[in-house]
Amino acid sequence: MAQKEFSVVGKRITRIDAYERVTGQAQYTGDIQLAGMLYARLLRSPHPHARVVSIDTSKAEKLAGVKAVIHHQNAQVPWASGGHTHRRYIFNNPVRFVGDAVAAVAATDRHIAEEALGLIEVKYEKLPHVLDPNEALKPGAPKISTDGNLSVGKGNFSAPIAEQWGDLEKGFKEADRIFEDTYISKHVNNAQLEPRASVAKWEGGKLTVWASTQGVSNARTDIAKDLGLPLSKVRVICKYMGAGFGNKNQAQDYDLMAAVLAKVTGQPVKVEFTREDDFIGMHGRWASEQHYKIGVKRDGTITAVELDAVTNVGAYRKQSGNLSGTDFYQIPNFKKVVKPVHTNTVVGANYRAPAYPQSVFGFASFLDQIAHEMGINPLEMFLKNRVRLYANKTPFTSNFLEECAVEGAKKVGWKEKWHKAGAAAGPKKHGIGMALGGYPFRPGLGAAAIRVNPDGTAHVLVGVTDIGTGAKTTMAIIAAEALGIPLNQIQLTNGDTDVTPYSVGESGSRTTPFTGPAVIAAAEDVRKLIFNVAAPQLKAKAEDLDLRDGKVFVKSNPSQSLPLGRAVARSGELIGRATTNPTFKGLAGKSFAAHFAEVEVDSRTGHVKITRYVAVHDSGTIINRLAAESQIKGGVVQGIGMALTEELLIDRFTAIPLNPSYRDAKVPTHLEVPEIEVVFIEHPDPYGPFGGKVVGEPPITPAVATVANAIFNATGKRIKELPITPDKILRAAQV
Amino acid sequence: MAQKEFSVVGKRITRIDAYERVTGQAQYTGDIQLAGMLYARLLRSPHPHARVVSIDTSKAEKLAGVKAVIHHQNAQVPWASGGHTHRRYIFNNPVRFVGDAVAAVAATDRHIAEEALGLIEVKYEKLPHVLDPNEALKPGAPKISTDGNLSVGKGNFSAPIAEQWGDLEKGFKEADRIFEDTYISKHVNNAQLEPRASVAKWEGGKLTVWASTQGVSNARTDIAKDLGLPLSKVRVICKYMGAGFGNKNQAQDYDLMAAVLAKVTGQPVKVEFTREDDFIGMHGRWASEQHYKIGVKRDGTITAVELDAVTNVGAYRKQSGNLSGTDFYQIPNFKKVVKPVHTNTVVGANYRAPAYPQSVFGFASFLDQIAHEMGINPLEMFLKNRVRLYANKTPFTSNFLEECAVEGAKKVGWKEKWHKAGAAAGPKKHGIGMALGGYPFRPGLGAAAIRVNPDGTAHVLVGVTDIGTGAKTTMAIIAAEALGIPLNQIQLTNGDTDVTPYSVGESGSRTTPFTGPAVIAAAEDVRKLIFNVAAPQLKAKAEDLDLRDGKVFVKSNPSQSLPLGRAVARSGELIGRATTNPTFKGLAGKSFAAHFAEVEVDSRTGHVKITRYVAVHDSGTIINRLAAESQIKGGVVQGIGMALTEELLIDRFTAIPLNPSYRDAKVPTHLEVPEIEVVFIEHPDPYGPFGGKVVGEPPITPAVATVANAIFNATGKRIKELPITPDKILRAAQV
Repeated sequence: MAQKEFSVVGKRITRIDAYERVTGQAQYTGDIQLAGMLYARLLRSPHPHARVVSIDTSKAEKLAGVKAVIHHQNAQVPWASGGHTHRRYIFNNPVRFVGDAVAAVAATDRHIAEEALGLIEVKYEKLPHVLDPNEALKPGAPKISTDGNLSVGKGNFSAPIAEQWGDLEKGFKEADRIFEDTYISKHVNNAQLEPRASVAKWEGGKLTVWASTQGVSNARTDIAKDLGLPLSKVRVICKYMGAGFGNKNQAQDYDLMAAVLAKVTGQPVKVEFTREDDFIGMHGRWASEQHYKIGVKRDGTITAVELDAVTNVGAYRKQSGNLSGTDFYQIPNFKKVVKPVHTNTVVGANYRAPAYPQSVFGFASFLDQIAHEMGINPLEMFLKNRVRLYANKTPFTSNFLEECAVEGAKKVGWKEKWHKAGAAAGPKKHGIGMALGGYPFRPGLGAAAIRVNPDGTAHVLVGVTDIGTGAKTTMAIIAAEALGIPLNQIQLTNGDTDVTPYSVGESGSRTTPFTGPAVIAAAEDVRKLIFNVAAPQLKAKAEDLDLRDGKVFVKSNPSQSLPLGRAVARSGELIGRATTNPTFKGLAGKSFAAHFAEVEVDSRTGHVKITRYVAVHDSGTIINRLAAESQIKGGVVQGIGMALTEELLIDRFTAIPLNPSYRDAKVPTHLEVPEIEVVFIEHPDPYGPFGGKVVGEPPITPAVATVANAIFNATGKRIKELPITPDKILRAAQV
Repeated sequence: MAQKEFSVVGKRITRIDAYERVTGQAQYTGDIQLAGMLYARLLRSPHPHARVVSIDTSKAEKLAGVKAVIHHQNAQVPWASGGHTHRRYIFNNPVRFVGDAVAAVAATDRHIAEEALGLIEVKYEKLPHVLDPNEALKPGAPKISTDGNLSVGKGNFSAPIAEQWGDLEKGFKEADRIFEDTYISKHVNNAQLEPRASVAKWEGGKLTVWASTQGVSNARTDIAKDLGLPLSKVRVICKYMGAGFGNKNQAQDYDLMAAVLAKVTGQPVKVEFTREDDFIGMHGRWASEQHYKIGVKRDGTITAVELDAVTNVGAYRKQSGNLSGTDFYQIPNFKKVVKPVHTNTVVGANYRAPAYPQSVFGFASFLDQIAHEMGINPLEMFLKNRVRLYANKTPFTSNFLEECAVEGAKKVGWKEKWHKAGAAAGPKKHGIGMALGGYPFRPGLGAAAIRVNPDGTAHVLVGVTDIGTGAKTTMAIIAAEALGIPLNQIQLTNGDTDVTPYSVGESGSRTTPFTGPAVIAAAEDVRKLIFNVAAPQLKAKAEDLDLRDGKVFVKSNPSQSLPLGRAVARSGELIGRATTNPTFKGLAGKSFAAHFAEVEVDSRTGHVKITRYVAVHDSGTIINRLAAESQIKGGVVQGIGMALTEELLIDRFTAIPLNPSYRDAKVPTHLEVPEIEVVFIEHPDPYGPFGGKVVGEPPITPAVATVANAIFNATGKRIKELPITPDKILRAAQV
């Protein structure tokens, strides 16, 4: 499919809300101030597993300024988005991890609320706890969920997660060699910049929640369900938010706490999390232990893969707990069993490409290892086994994974730079590594409205929240392109369920493929109305008209034209709208990526310096080059952190998280990351809006494995447990 | 046309935003608080006509907390909505009335801003002034407008306003008697509850104005035009407002002052008016002097009417200055010349039914007088001469004026109670009077959007501001009825140009006839989408489906049905929208009214007590009985005030307004008004939404004349100049 001539799509476009963001005028949830607003703080369990025998709030309630204290006895509100396995409430008894919410206080200021927390007297009966998922599965282990510690699935979330195709036995028989090994990933926090906050206000029977959410529509659905309200009586607003990376999908327990406190007190209530609350009271990426058995032919071709894994979903199941890193390889015979397990630790759930970077680390590390052991160049190994058919059967809408790998290898100079693992000279050892990645590109339900003003400028209404991805700008670009007017004539309103159309929520990299087509369809809808009013003015038929660059013209004679503002001047305004639900008709969608890194490992200190990073992506047409590049860079940075430094450490005896802060959890800073070179292999996908696929989640997927493989290439030592810290490198060197 | 069976329309429905209003949660413009917001105050001219020779703001600017001072030298912004005759600016030089804005100060708090006003040193060169419109028309009178004191028309506003049909000379020849007389009305302030306020904020190149406006779309258009911005870069928000009665149409000069001050200071700015500012700095109803010549047959039939009048539009022309009180009578030969004249007084412009109550007072008083002099019962006189064809030629869409008069006469007991004027016995004299009124019902441009949620509840988006008329509730009722769902499942968003569709603005009683049809059409639009998704579920064709009371069903078999929430559960949301522009095809539209009052005039004190008031209205179908009754009552109250007490007094020598306050301008209180009995003659109009015509402006139109005629019936003395105060009654009694 030939590249279309675009007016706006594909340029490097600064964000349409850049001014508001950089001048501090953008109102984030934490900035919301309402008359009579109260401040709420949470009391959290100090025990990993305990029954709450009694709660005495009388002293707290007597403190001047305290307006309400809620807990499991007076606020047993179910929490839908946490209720995938067993029934979960905003306050649970027993409490199941250190950080589980026990009570919430609303007071006239923050300090009083915090002081009141210390006055709540809770009697706990300690229960035995378990932190390791393998231990938790043993008979006689402390029972965390009433359904057992193998997290029982509900809805989309089965347990164990099993997938299989081909004939595994035959596959292993066809193999010349069979390898088995285990790779381990740890819990890392999403560590988004904006701490959680929620403001709730009731007006009669109507609840408004200013939420820091990735999806206002989903948050509304959840809150309405949990509180038993019709959708029209819940308004969720999120105009600006400071990222979530899957950690702010839908509504959270604190949104409900704010709503309950606001109802009880009759005043608006703001719940605010500290950074520590964020680390221990929310969730991070599920840890995993992945045992692989891989059969390969002599030439490196995979014949069979068996994956047997446990993932640690913590005390409550919020999301799948799956592992999907094998997705990027053509595996003729496959079996996967992933067991999501409950432990008495902080919840493991969605974090950018939830099931990917930890298992891409495992599988691509192992494949790199197998290549090493079989004397095959890893580039050849990855190219040979790259995926052609999804799950060995379904063609992709488009697939330029091969081009990504070839182009990246060329750009990084693989041929010249790759050497045998551990073969570099000197104390500072050069290494080069690569891995494949990507993320599903799915079709689905979207909606949008476009209002064309009588001067030809336009208002676009979309439900997207713009979680830092630049989605508002993307939607404005798509609207400008589809409508045929300059971008600066578009005004966009987002993230308010009372006024903006349904959006799926910014998770699963779904915004562009779900809402993008709706914006295009809404533009087409209003163009019809425009052509109807312009036709008599241009003495032409409506169907013979086109609109580009703000001019309505006769297709066969473009000089016969009218500025849009003249054409619609007497129309008050024209409104286009669409609800779209595209399908791929038997195809699978995926964005693809091949990443390459060079490192310098100091063999005396174990310090790893990434000296070069090349990320090559097939995301179809790039809608906004500037934003897309930023997304790639951000994903790589998070992958580097996960590869080298990040881990939430839990004390083995007390189960207390030891490093719940940016500094101690070692989220990378500018000093730890190199300039990242981004390359797009840009072929329009026939099913994406203007040919675009997805951008947000792909870049994190291969980054951990890429860095790990480069370290192996430098040191000749395979570290199989994340993060690859200097102590592990030094210890491995001593073996 | 038979009355349709309605589910929601026609009930007595409390306002959908009643909770927010009565609990104080409703945010009016004055309630808006923004971070870093400044407060602005205005310096006004103490002279009726003067050239500003110099303005020295240095002392004011040195006052700590003062951020900006603007005036005609540094902020010469044109003001479109005030620019109908000559070019007008937000600060003018020369200043042309006591109260004309000279400068505005923005400071960190209100008190500093007020203190700073006193530090601005203005040198004025006084110019000769004129207050009386007849004087102003004389040669050699002080020149107020450069175009002359007869206000030159532009656009819709001609000068003089001339209208004529039939053959006046022939008409007077056919008359058995010819009467001539002059009636005078005075300037009265709209005196709405909410004082003016405006908050402006810039975000980069985008301006947001929280305005207390009757029309956010028109306000946006005006502001964009005046400041040279595209419509997409101006957002006007007005969610709640405390009435305007025509005084807050479109944008006002203070909206522009707020915008300029916000631009200059880089901070949000709130302009607030005091009550005195409201009385002298804005406008009231234009005063008038109406000279009539009326020819009648012996039986009372009018053969010809000539009206020669001047109206006082004050220093600047904002609106028509017309007089239309003859509209309710069948006049075969007619000539009208109305001269809108500039004087050095506060502006006379729109106030509820702008051209009517003062001229209905004149014409219906005179007709009552003629009936008296010819020995005809006024009821007969009014019935005989009631209008049948608009302007003696155009049929009405519907006209039940006769029924109004007949029904009202019956209800008040006219036959039994009417007596010869001045014939009542005792010091407290009984009187009874009547008059006819109404207001044009026009078709025009409207827009609306309706979003149906996946649970079957719905969001209605309309641009109406709801100026106190209950327009939000009216639109929700129309949407519920048209959509076929219960009213409590409708959530309505209004008054925000970034998100709500175009609305004409709540002036000219246009909201229901302009936006109502758009709401119905948007409902029909989304019903089609609903039927498309419901059809396969109901195994029926989309065109065979209907939706009522929240159920989608097969028309031929209503038991084959689905709750709407089930039918659309998987649709994300469905969006209906419409831009409508209905026409009447050679017909004229009008709501009609006949009012009846009984009074008791104390012949010793001149005090008038209204003992009974019956208002009978033909407004087609009544959409919300409760709101419609309130509208009628409110209009009558304002008419009573204008009849008996209200007048803005201007000192003859200094031109200073003497009574710019509620108390001194004698706006009626509960003590001055009786319980008002409201009767609707309810026949659906074939062109109105669900048969509704207009309600807002009709009730004030006949009220002044009705009271005046009742006083005449009590005293036998005709007072020809408003207001009919006790001193005038006593003086007339002495003649």
